[in-house]
Amino acid sequence: MRGRRDYRVFDERFGYLFNSYYNAKGDRHPRPERGVLSRPSLDDVHAYRAHVDAAVIEAIDALDPDLVALGLAHEEQHQELMLMDIKHLFSLNIIAPAYQPRSRRGASEAPAPIGWAEFAGGLIEIGREGGGFAFDNEGPRHKQYLAPFALADRLVTAREYREFMEDGGYARPEFWLSDGWDIVQNEGWQAPLYWREREGDWRLFTLQGERPLDPHEPVLHVSYYEADAYARWAKARLPTEAEWEHAAILVQAAPSHSRAELHVRTAAESPSQALLKQMFGEAWQWTQSAYAPYPGYCPPAGAIGEYNGKFMVNQMVLRGSSFATPPGHARLTYRNFFSPAARWMFSGIRMAKDA
Amino acid sequence: MRGRRDYRVFDERFGYLFNSYYNAKGDRHPRPERGVLSRPSLDDVHAYRAHVDAAVIEAIDALDPDLVALGLAHEEQHQELMLMDIKHLFSLNIIAPAYQPRSRRGASEAPAPIGWAEFAGGLIEIGREGGGFAFDNEGPRHKQYLAPFALADRLVTAREYREFMEDGGYARPEFWLSDGWDIVQNEGWQAPLYWREREGDWRLFTLQGERPLDPHEPVLHVSYYEADAYARWAKARLPTEAEWEHAAILVQAAPSHSRAELHVRTAAESPSQALLKQMFGEAWQWTQSAYAPYPGYCPPAGAIGEYNGKFMVNQMVLRGSSFATPPGHARLTYRNFFSPAARWMFSGIRMAKDA
Amino acid sequence: MRGRRDYRVFDERFGYLFNSYYNAKGDRHPRPERGVLSRPSLDDVHAYRAHVDAAVIEAIDALDPDLVALGLAHEEQHQELMLMDIKHLFSLNIIAPAYQPRSRRGASEAPAPIGWAEFAGGLIEIGREGGGFAFDNEGPRHKQYLAPFALADRLVTAREYREFMEDGGYARPEFWLSDGWDIVQNEGWQAPLYWREREGDWRLFTLQGERPLDPHEPVLHVSYYEADAYARWAKARLPTEAEWEHAAILVQAAPSHSRAELHVRTAAESPSQALLKQMFGEAWQWTQSAYAPYPGYCPPAGAIGEYNGKFMVNQMVLRGSSFATPPGHARLTYRNFFSPAARWMFSGIRMAKDA
Amino acid sequence: MRGRRDYRVFDERFGYLFNSYYNAKGDRHPRPERGVLSRPSLDDVHAYRAHVDAAVIEAIDALDPDLVALGLAHEEQHQELMLMDIKHLFSLNIIAPAYQPRSRRGASEAPAPIGWAEFAGGLIEIGREGGGFAFDNEGPRHKQYLAPFALADRLVTAREYREFMEDGGYARPEFWLSDGWDIVQNEGWQAPLYWREREGDWRLFTLQGERPLDPHEPVLHVSYYEADAYARWAKARLPTEAEWEHAAILVQAAPSHSRAELHVRTAAESPSQALLKQMFGEAWQWTQSAYAPYPGYCPPAGAIGEYNGKFMVNQMVLRGSSFATPPGHARLTYRNFFSPAARWMFSGIRMAKDA
Repeated sequence: MRGRRDYRVFDERFGYLFNSYYNAKGDRHPRPERGVLSRPSLDDVHAYRAHVDAAVIEAIDALDPDLVALGLAHEEQHQELMLMDIKHLFSLNIIAPAYQPRSRRGASEAPAPIGWAEFAGGLIEIGREGGGFAFDNEGPRHKQYLAPFALADRLVTAREYREFMEDGGYARPEFWLSDGWDIVQNEGWQAPLYWREREGDWRLFTLQGERPLDPHEPVLHVSYYEADAYARWAKARLPTEAEWEHAAILVQAAPSHSRAELHVRTAAESPSQALLKQMFGEAWQWTQSAYAPYPGYCPPAGAIGEYNGKFMVNQMVLRGSSFATPPGHARLTYRNFFSPAARWMFSGIRMAKDA
Repeated sequence: MRGRRDYRVFDERFGYLFNSYYNAKGDRHPRPERGVLSRPSLDDVHAYRAHVDAAVIEAIDALDPDLVALGLAHEEQHQELMLMDIKHLFSLNIIAPAYQPRSRRGASEAPAPIGWAEFAGGLIEIGREGGGFAFDNEGPRHKQYLAPFALADRLVTAREYREFMEDGGYARPEFWLSDGWDIVQNEGWQAPLYWREREGDWRLFTLQGERPLDPHEPVLHVSYYEADAYARWAKARLPTEAEWEHAAILVQAAPSHSRAELHVRTAAESPSQALLKQMFGEAWQWTQSAYAPYPGYCPPAGAIGEYNGKFMVNQMVLRGSSFATPPGHARLTYRNFFSPAARWMFSGIRMAKDA
Repeated sequence: MRGRRDYRVFDERFGYLFNSYYNAKGDRHPRPERGVLSRPSLDDVHAYRAHVDAAVIEAIDALDPDLVALGLAHEEQHQELMLMDIKHLFSLNIIAPAYQPRSRRGASEAPAPIGWAEFAGGLIEIGREGGGFAFDNEGPRHKQYLAPFALADRLVTAREYREFMEDGGYARPEFWLSDGWDIVQNEGWQAPLYWREREGDWRLFTLQGERPLDPHEPVLHVSYYEADAYARWAKARLPTEAEWEHAAILVQAAPSHSRAELHVRTAAESPSQALLKQMFGEAWQWTQSAYAPYPGYCPPAGAIGEYNGKFMVNQMVLRGSSFATPPGHARLTYRNFFSPAARWMFSGIRMAKDA
Repeated sequence: MRGRRDYRVFDERFGYLFNSYYNAKGDRHPRPERGVLSRPSLDDVHAYRAHVDAAVIEAIDALDPDLVALGLAHEEQHQELMLMDIKHLFSLNIIAPAYQPRSRRGASEAPAPIGWAEFAGGLIEIGREGGGFAFDNEGPRHKQYLAPFALADRLVTAREYREFMEDGGYARPEFWLSDGWDIVQNEGWQAPLYWREREGDWRLFTLQGERPLDPHEPVLHVSYYEADAYARWAKARLPTEAEWEHAAILVQAAPSHSRAELHVRTAAESPSQALLKQMFGEAWQWTQSAYAPYPGYCPPAGAIGEYNGKFMVNQMVLRGSSFATPPGHARLTYRNFFSPAARWMFSGIRMAKDA
């Protein structure tokens, strides 16, 4: 830790235990064996946290502010990841534990049919402007040429997705990328993650436990393959990240929000966002863009350089933010990314079209 | 639960969650996903235990005494299994947590060289006599013909095993069964489980944490393949279970013991047992007998019948008992069994020879 | 090659290419990559064979006769293995190629119900006597004590096995060993290998191509798990190898036979064998004996010692011989062995009972 | 087959056997079991080919010319694939068989250091123009904005690549994408495919057998991960496919070529190509572009639509052509694609830089 010559590590071995993936930080506990760690005890972990917090607070004025901002942004990412992991863990338990109680709500309202916002395209710019914190992968700002396109004005709902399912969506290879079709076959996918069929009805596992599926909610927990197959079935496509970012300028920049109930909301419940609803704060939106460096991108030196750059292959970009993204974390230029097969994050579908 | 018409289960779903392997008891939580269970909470588990304890105590006079005895014996098996699992889990943690503090002891004493107790063999009998509880797999009592043989009067020590290692034991296929050699190659076995080389010295991970290897202790945590390879290297062999049981008659039946320190003792520390030392209470002893039904064996009906019979293939028998076996649990006729590749139980080596 | 100082190997690299499993013979081509060998060409292989044949013929008088006998017996084993492998390979091809043409036959005759030959047991002897070639694993001859038992007088037929299937044989865990039940579930076993359901009828893939299943033929291509489950369903059990060998003394020692049509015959077609039919020449018969060394067994030194001894774990013994066993190869004391899950050899079921 | 109502298929089952991946064409022989097909016999395959050839020739005037062109282009792709597969198969054989004899050549000449051709970029166009056959994935032609860039004027040589290796290339995670580093670790990669260290010297397995590595030849058989890591080490990067295509306009369009010796040539041996050497006819060149649909791309209906579109994820684009690409097959707009881990195709490295 720069600026603190006299810092004493809490436990030498914790650097090994808690190194998640930084090669530049030396060896680490093997990832598949993480589940076997029952020690250090909860008390030790709390003491470790208090030790680190105290040292950071004491040192904070002397620290590089960019590094502090990066640390905070990283911590915020883990807040969302914790909710993803808790939901996944709980879902594997037949008891279906609830992370938080469920608020009583009346029946939800069906949204209006999807409308299409049209954009003329042309030579536009995307990427971080400078001014305020952003991750390195959001820059440099650069030009891109866009053909005219249209973007759906809201997310795809569970009911709309169920129509795809009922039309044989998971049984007709013509909608699927080859790798996606292999997974559908091998994993026996029949529906999004956390959908459960009980005697003909669909129920949904949420952070508030299991309950009937609300047809008017955005569909959640779809992989890239499912989002792409749905869009093909719907005679549309997914947007590129440049299209998404260009269109999102219309929306007031990612609003701060803090949710009492950690779950996605219907279009009616979402705050009014003029032309385009649900761009932020409901579900991350798959784009058809592979996660790649922007022209001129150069990762910083050292372990910080491992933060983003080394993952720039075999992943697809998601844009926007979800109900579980901490307040103030999302940005117009924010690039989230996951493997095309992943479904445990809070991902949804917004369609695009050639105009 | 027989005899208690009015018993109310604590939670319907626990039957699914906590069914380890009984097909007759219906579906169960998939074994590879056990590690993901973070619920029910510890409080719920304690309440469940109290609920069951109370019901058992209330009902105990009306219950089938054989079933109660089986339940207790089964519970005792899990006491040893818990220690095996705790040791294994802790061993995977770089912090090397200790399950219990280590007592201070002086240097241990080298045992006398192995002596050989000779037996004339002939037509003998093994298996449960009746009188007192025994598992179904210990009977029926039946005749076997034994050729003359000799049994080692103590367990193989760590120092003796290290000689095998230093003579290329893990690098010379001529000592190994083919399946064992494959594992040695694929898993990179170089020593028994929990042995750790640190700058040329061997250290041992124990339930008291990591410490220098005591050369005079019995070697522990060897697979059948290693025990068999060691014996072949030593120009001996492993005993059959009939030989072991026939010889063990000489030893006072398995003594009750309760250990302060959960670890194996040297021959000098072990209580005097006349001709044969360390038959009980130190380390389970691999035999060369595949786990199979005794002539005339017939498993009981129902879920109880799944207890032993259905595992009678692909396993080898171990005899005796270990330092972790609860007091009163072991017996002359007791048949423990594990896959020949398993090493996480408290297993050691006693050799035999043709006389 | 002993006795031939001046022998020149055909190609230095063939020792590596064609070493199947002898550790004492050095490195070898990895087993899972055998399928990729398209070279040496067929011409080279023929030339290699001619080279070796010529050298053996020239040297044969100077060679150790025991070694020559072992070589011939080993070659004969591979003759049967070749037929097993050809059948398996062809079965995977939708074209269902026939290895040989099928002879025209009328409908087969239903055998009489299984009769039981009773044996008093007692202290008996099994194993090679000396006199004539035998594999090392067939000795030493030694005593065993047998309780009274009965042996079925013929093999189980396909019709009888189908009754087990129709009674839920593959769906009821109470008949199965735990490891076997896992395979049934994981592999989706519903019938013996090579049985094929076509619109409600069972057809059989044979070395003569695919044809309707003959209900009166012995069931073939069952694993140990299936043989054991069938016997449990039929309220019987499999014999031990000692029981089988003791009973087989009644039968004229394994007859020489050479089959025009390589397939199993019904009991009516099998040559009359007094009390016990089909002991040799139809299908290998699973025993409940794990493959283990006989008391006093000691493998020979060198690579020859790897022939049998190193496989003595995790396998079950089969006795008798099959229609594909070369003439003169089988013996009363012959011990065949396979993994309990294997089904591609010509294996059938003969039951036993406690008398 | 359109236009031939009366066509009789050679064998109904061949449609199943020889369907490689077309879901729209029904079920198919499982890919991992392809190695077990020893039937149909070579004679049958020849007869099948003759049958199809005759039918095509008879029908050709009535057939859709676009479909015929697609069929021919597809066949040409398989000609190169056959050479890739033959090389791979032969490489796994210790005998190191040669596909063709090796011509005698003198020592090769070291090329001049890499020079950099500079391009101003701006709003350019890439993709098929129409006029002549092209695959569907090469269009539509569309605009892209390029920042100024420079392209290396020749491929990276084996000697240059060895410098990367000797500088710890395969041992320093800072050069690698995370997925690439995992493979380096798990597969133990130390060099490109087919490089073999023999007593300190590097030898190369080629279609002409094994021989010393020629340091001045382009490095071949590198994965995307290796190409990307090399470029990062060399303080450069890989080109995008738009950069590559824009630069390649300078080069006379892909020359027809037919090679006597199927191997890559040094820059000196390659035909003079003005500013940029070795763009075509030596080795496919990895780009940093993920394989994705061009804006406005829409796959054709039916099985033809499965040809390219369904693979547009998890793959990287390669441009140019190799020594094994059939004459006339390559094009300026040609998009080859492989998984980033693949190395068995004839792939090399051309670097780019921001200008």
